Amino acid sequence: MALKPVKRNVTLKDIAQRTGFSVNTVSRVLRGKSEIADETRETILAAAKEMGHVRNMLASSLRSGVSNTIAVILGDVSNPHFAIMMSEIEHYARSLGYTSFLINTDEDEEREAEAIHTALNQSVDGIIICPTQRSPRNIDFLRERHIPFVLIGRREANTSYVICNDELGGYQATRRLLDAGHREILLMGGPGYISSAAERKAGYLRALAEAGIAPRPELMVEVPVTAANNCAETVDRLRRNQVRFTAIFAFSDIIAWKCWSCLQRANVRVPEDVSIVGFDYIQSRLELPFQVTSISSHKRHMSTTAVDVLLAAIRSRSIQKVEQIIIDTTLSEGQTVLPAR
Amino acid sequence: MALKPVKRNVTLKDIAQRTGFSVNTVSRVLRGKSEIADETRETILAAAKEMGHVRNMLASSLRSGVSNTIAVILGDVSNPHFAIMMSEIEHYARSLGYTSFLINTDEDEEREAEAIHTALNQSVDGIIICPTQRSPRNIDFLRERHIPFVLIGRREANTSYVICNDELGGYQATRRLLDAGHREILLMGGPGYISSAAERKAGYLRALAEAGIAPRPELMVEVPVTAANNCAETVDRLRRNQVRFTAIFAFSDIIAWKCWSCLQRANVRVPEDVSIVGFDYIQSRLELPFQVTSISSHKRHMSTTAVDVLLAAIRSRSIQKVEQIIIDTTLSEGQTVLPAR
Repeated sequence: MALKPVKRNVTLKDIAQRTGFSVNTVSRVLRGKSEIADETRETILAAAKEMGHVRNMLASSLRSGVSNTIAVILGDVSNPHFAIMMSEIEHYARSLGYTSFLINTDEDEEREAEAIHTALNQSVDGIIICPTQRSPRNIDFLRERHIPFVLIGRREANTSYVICNDELGGYQATRRLLDAGHREILLMGGPGYISSAAERKAGYLRALAEAGIAPRPELMVEVPVTAANNCAETVDRLRRNQVRFTAIFAFSDIIAWKCWSCLQRANVRVPEDVSIVGFDYIQSRLELPFQVTSISSHKRHMSTTAVDVLLAAIRSRSIQKVEQIIIDTTLSEGQTVLPAR
Repeated sequence: MALKPVKRNVTLKDIAQRTGFSVNTVSRVLRGKSEIADETRETILAAAKEMGHVRNMLASSLRSGVSNTIAVILGDVSNPHFAIMMSEIEHYARSLGYTSFLINTDEDEEREAEAIHTALNQSVDGIIICPTQRSPRNIDFLRERHIPFVLIGRREANTSYVICNDELGGYQATRRLLDAGHREILLMGGPGYISSAAERKAGYLRALAEAGIAPRPELMVEVPVTAANNCAETVDRLRRNQVRFTAIFAFSDIIAWKCWSCLQRANVRVPEDVSIVGFDYIQSRLELPFQVTSISSHKRHMSTTAVDVLLAAIRSRSIQKVEQIIIDTTLSEGQTVLPAR
């Protein structure tokens, strides 16, 4: 079995020989220089494509410092919310001439550090990241290195970010349930160190306060935000301990689905016995035969805005200008809220 | 506003000064050489980590030709089936010391070509790809260049691949519906140029033949396999044309969900009026409050096997040895099949 070397590339010289132009002209066309006759450019690009030329971005990005590539670092791509955002980021970045690739963190700080190192090793021009927020370490690292980056979905002080208005979303969700007459509303929240989880809880508390209802600690629980979480056990435990609730405000749609599934197994009907409001409005892109009433975070708008903010940072190569953008949420009515009985 | 250069790295010299070891020793540890005392290695790695050292993989991969990075090129990450496979590939590859990143093709041949070029530009060691199969062009390109790669989920002759037994899956799904007494079974298939779609259809035809039922062209339709497809329109059109069916075998769970949603809007009940069997068994990882009866393609097994095949190819640097692995499917019972009335 012969060991064959990887044939990485067709050279500029190969293309020059095929087309009859000089190596210099071929090089100028492939580097996107402008002062070339249209016909010449087209001939050379067609030949390069036909011959399977791969621009050696490693070498050229070492020279120019530009790779036209961005890394997207997200918590859990098996959550459709993140998968849809990745898809939106990619489509939009591509329309602007940037390639993007995705690295997962599994909401784990060590993996997040590795993901950042991988991105830098691949010499990306910038990073869009939904930070794990266990500690400021990884974001501090990016900041200290002057890497262009923007947070998406979660925020930290003194960094650029694009988020939805999580406090408003938490308020709208709770308000919807209060308006339907519910008074015992279980908050299935995310960990408090995640900014979006803390802010959605703040919105929940504001709505309760407005309705003159004192918050009860046993009705405010935290579960992990990855798809592989323990929220079924949490719901079961509350029910065993006879903690009464007639409605749930879930941190995300996947948590809402899990709560629903868990209640269904216990012969508790949704929405007849328990109403549920989720967050993310995944239904907008993944058509399901039942629809969770949910808070829409406008994933497309958030994604394209994050790309715009990142590309502006890459172009200016300045981390001085901090852009912080908050997009208001809206309630999307589904089939999981009924009046309290 | 000052333009600051990107500070890319802490040097080996910085780490040597901090730890008291020589630059040579630091370099040997960071390159993973083995003949170093454990204590020395740990001290140096801890310091490197604390100081935020980023191994310059660009430079080192140009030297060694090894980046310990693989690209995963998939059709549509907003389909949970692909997102779950990506997650499985990543976890397993990581346990073996490889970083993986994802690029989407949107099932578009041009984007697939770009994804391959991006991967090569990032000097990955190999590629796991679910090919669009519009034409053999992109796979031929990989083969001619002697890039280590393995197909996942779809197959072509003379290439390494890991697939599920799609013909068997198509047979099992159809057989399940036939056993429940259904005779008019709508095949919501994928495009015939996709190997998995052609093979699932072959399984459908085998089950019909076995039951002595002649296949009817109007009951075998093709829809795109991306999440943004037109299968609701297709179902509506069939119903307008009074094409009668009491069951559906859908190419994927997302298509099954769409058919279900569409029927629901038309006041056709699932499963009371129409039974549905899907494919992919997404429920195994994404807990939903209703469960489609589905064919399990054993995503974890497929994903880890694909990584094993790819890494073997990377190590041998040989494209001579073609590995073709087919994993048998199983039926996962859900709540969407009832006996025909």
